Amino acid sequence: MNIWIELENAERGECRPLAAVIESIPWNADGLITAIAQQYDSGEVLMLAWMNHAALSETLHRGQVCYWSRSRQTLWRKGESSGNRQRLVEARLDCDGDAVLLKVDQQGPACHTGRPSCFYNAIHRETVEVITAPLNH
Amino acid sequence: MNIWIELENAERGECRPLAAVIESIPWNADGLITAIAQQYDSGEVLMLAWMNHAALSETLHRGQVCYWSRSRQTLWRKGESSGNRQRLVEARLDCDGDAVLLKVDQQGPACHTGRPSCFYNAIHRETVEVITAPLNH
Repeated sequence: MNIWIELENAERGECRPLAAVIESIPWNADGLITAIAQQYDSGEVLMLAWMNHAALSETLHRGQVCYWSRSRQTLWRKGESSGNRQRLVEARLDCDGDAVLLKVDQQGPACHTGRPSCFYNAIHRETVEVITAPLNH
Repeated sequence: MNIWIELENAERGECRPLAAVIESIPWNADGLITAIAQQYDSGEVLMLAWMNHAALSETLHRGQVCYWSRSRQTLWRKGESSGNRQRLVEARLDCDGDAVLLKVDQQGPACHTGRPSCFYNAIHRETVEVITAPLNH
């Protein structure tokens, strides 16, 4: 049986081997799943990015978040050049295994604009408002 | 200039017309952006889904979340059959406009499995553990 259906029907506290679960991830046509980074203590959603098999494996192994950069087509060790690293606190897969939620401890701003979160464009009835400023600005 | 760069360089509190921003959303090859639903008060990340132009417009207009179902290739008015609706409290676009964060008030479980959130598969060192049970189970 499909492991996602097994997990769906499992009781709370039941486990499956990590290797078997990762083996069953339904990577998209580009070999990727979506990753949501959330600050572990405040609950703030920081950014959305992508992971391939290597990025997910490295992240779980090292405990520092590594994405796949779709624009640069390379592994993207978050904060490697900027210092704005994400330490992994907890990771969870969703019900059909094509998205991963990363609870992280973000060092500095998560966004390339210098803002704490990438989600700084608030949608109002008629306008979009920039609701945060870059840190140290 | 690209409106995303304008917003990136805008001061906190600056606005742009909603219509112009939506006009500039970089929909993917299938005409979609990713949508993250987050319970507005607890901060719990509930699910990840997809929206096309019509789904986003309807969601903003009606204040009830509507996604695009990739499996059924149709608008998916969340909770229309199950009753597990998502009332939109706030919506935010990210820095490059290809993801939207929906702060919602979730009625009942968000996940089709009956669990509060779709992210119930916790990744440990060697195993994946189901950490929540379906509601009323």
